[in-house]
Amino acid sequence: MLRHIGSPPVSIVLWDGSEVSASDAAPEFRVSIADRMTLWRVACDPLAQFGEGYSRGAIQVDGDFVEFLRMMMYPLAGPRFGVRRRARNAFRWHGPKGMTLAGSRENIYRHYDIGNPFYKLWLDERMLYTCAYFREIEMSLEDAQIAKMDHICRKLQLKPGETVIEAGCGWGGFALHMAAHYGVTVRAFNISREQILYARESARLAGLEDRVEFVEEDWREITGQCDAFVSVGMLEHVGIEHFRRLGKVIDRCLTPEGRGLIHSIGRNYPEPLNPWIERHIFPGAEPPALSEMMDIFEHRNFSVLDLENIRLHYAVTLEHWLARFDENVDEVRDMFDEPFVRMWRLYLASSMVAFECGLLQLFQVVFAPGRSNNIPWTRDYMYSGDQTKEFGAVWRGRNGKHSRDAM
Amino acid sequence: MLRHIGSPPVSIVLWDGSEVSASDAAPEFRVSIADRMTLWRVACDPLAQFGEGYSRGAIQVDGDFVEFLRMMMYPLAGPRFGVRRRARNAFRWHGPKGMTLAGSRENIYRHYDIGNPFYKLWLDERMLYTCAYFREIEMSLEDAQIAKMDHICRKLQLKPGETVIEAGCGWGGFALHMAAHYGVTVRAFNISREQILYARESARLAGLEDRVEFVEEDWREITGQCDAFVSVGMLEHVGIEHFRRLGKVIDRCLTPEGRGLIHSIGRNYPEPLNPWIERHIFPGAEPPALSEMMDIFEHRNFSVLDLENIRLHYAVTLEHWLARFDENVDEVRDMFDEPFVRMWRLYLASSMVAFECGLLQLFQVVFAPGRSNNIPWTRDYMYSGDQTKEFGAVWRGRNGKHSRDAM
Repeated sequence: MLRHIGSPPVSIVLWDGSEVSASDAAPEFRVSIADRMTLWRVACDPLAQFGEGYSRGAIQVDGDFVEFLRMMMYPLAGPRFGVRRRARNAFRWHGPKGMTLAGSRENIYRHYDIGNPFYKLWLDERMLYTCAYFREIEMSLEDAQIAKMDHICRKLQLKPGETVIEAGCGWGGFALHMAAHYGVTVRAFNISREQILYARESARLAGLEDRVEFVEEDWREITGQCDAFVSVGMLEHVGIEHFRRLGKVIDRCLTPEGRGLIHSIGRNYPEPLNPWIERHIFPGAEPPALSEMMDIFEHRNFSVLDLENIRLHYAVTLEHWLARFDENVDEVRDMFDEPFVRMWRLYLASSMVAFECGLLQLFQVVFAPGRSNNIPWTRDYMYSGDQTKEFGAVWRGRNGKHSRDAM
Repeated sequence: MLRHIGSPPVSIVLWDGSEVSASDAAPEFRVSIADRMTLWRVACDPLAQFGEGYSRGAIQVDGDFVEFLRMMMYPLAGPRFGVRRRARNAFRWHGPKGMTLAGSRENIYRHYDIGNPFYKLWLDERMLYTCAYFREIEMSLEDAQIAKMDHICRKLQLKPGETVIEAGCGWGGFALHMAAHYGVTVRAFNISREQILYARESARLAGLEDRVEFVEEDWREITGQCDAFVSVGMLEHVGIEHFRRLGKVIDRCLTPEGRGLIHSIGRNYPEPLNPWIERHIFPGAEPPALSEMMDIFEHRNFSVLDLENIRLHYAVTLEHWLARFDENVDEVRDMFDEPFVRMWRLYLASSMVAFECGLLQLFQVVFAPGRSNNIPWTRDYMYSGDQTKEFGAVWRGRNGKHSRDAM
């Protein structure tokens, strides 16, 4: 098995103390496997079973864990070879559950409703649980999340007085940012109850209740008209078979001169999500390839105007999250238990490596109705001028920190 | 028929002098039809037969011709409705010929080898026959073509000493620009004999023969390694069924840390080219939807990094071409004949309107091997600084005009 992935400098220590290695060099990593069943399972289905064994402690890794994941995951991302497109149905035994309305609610509860205090331990102060935009790589996570929101608002060319619909609003940070800094009115949708309650409380504290409405409904239930439709980190949960319907919903909402932006994890080619992540972390999630994503737009004559892939920014975002998680690991262990800690660390670290080695992408797609000529002439509007000065500081996070410098 | 497209202010004058109108208002346009057969053909197959009748003079239009085309073509571009994706095979009787190697050569000869003196009459001085980039809308066509080349070179982040393969190089203007201004070595491929001979002569005049090689071969025959693969306005002629093979060719050529850019006419959804254009202007051409275009990238694990849609720039480019064509129409008539003049005017004017109303798109797609992390961190590198000063003026066109101001 080790030889198959290029004889990495790993030795495997079995339950009886015996040690095997595929490489002649001294091993840099020592992987201990606690019992025969775990070994058997990992050998048969490593993508699903490594996570299972690691979480329950039946697999232990000695050495730098992130480096270990890099060594194991980089070969999965290439070399570039022949046809990589696979029939999704061939993987259906791992595949996501049918994402009905009820199924979606169940899936979302399982991830996002495990407790705001937990997410507070390792997300930024605005609780943005999506890829940040590090204009400069040394930026703090808080600043990079603000930069991400501003980057998206600029792409959407939001103007005061316009209306925005946000599909999948998380804890509401972006909706409040748009209302506070761009003078727009926002209707934001989410089916996570805990997140919606938190978002409403944030709106009240920020005095933005009249300009931001948080609606506890699924994207399929979105109604109303808007000048801009935006969705950040929801598409992964929609399911590829529903993309056409999502296009229909957007078409129904968007004014003839409106603009839209979808920010989503994606792939270079169609392939299912890692089955362990799908099972334990993101039930029902399916990051699409671009050919699949186009199903949203092509059935409704939307024009794709701009696409940017910022996958390396997600690697850096996850590096920040992992560092904060590690700083607060004792509190996490008190909230949950050791298997949860191991599971979450593996999820954060392996996701970081997946974005780093190109197994996952992060796409921002700007689109408009195909007949609209209310589209940017060039992209200069996004990159000229001092971006930090252009927008005033009105709402700067729930905790009342009003100065960017103080963060 | 007129009522079907919304009763436009048009009256139709028949061969016997009788006049019909679908609108109560005074007609703004008068369309004369010379005989019963022409009327019958246009009624049965307007997309193909309007051009036929117009070219041979059996259909005449009184009134502003571009406004007439706008009125007729805008309804084709929408409203946004239901499923527009159509089985291409249902249109095969209009569809492109199988693009074998020999078929491609035949198709290209028919368009590009009708005479350099003809194209000189209405293209810019560098003979760039692709969409320009009007950084400012008032720019001259010559400047906008230079801006387009610089825009692409910036997206490719060309560095001195690197090697570039250009697939479909036209009259060679872009290959020479890259070599002269970015210090790269270029191998440029084209199957149009007239264009290749012209390009080689241009390289000789510019003293760039040692840095630019023009190869009279099809894209399928491209060999060698390169740091950057670029193709501007060739993909339309490749044929969608060959995209996968094109991806294989690029994969074979590109170094592991290389970059690529494809600049192509496209569509918001899969649909065949207008049959009259396909028959008389661009035999074999198929502008792809993005879902189709992804066939180039997804089978070879390429990452799409950046996509920009600049369709309105093509409308302005065509406006310039049409104006220059009209200025030189007497010379064109002497070279060819009146039906050719009418055909070419219809082609330029209707293409302008097609880009204006969203029937056609212009995509620039930047990509890289999926494993490469030699990718831009943000897009700031493209938009910061004074772009006109950044690159020296070495080669400024075949005619020896060396100052940008003098153009």
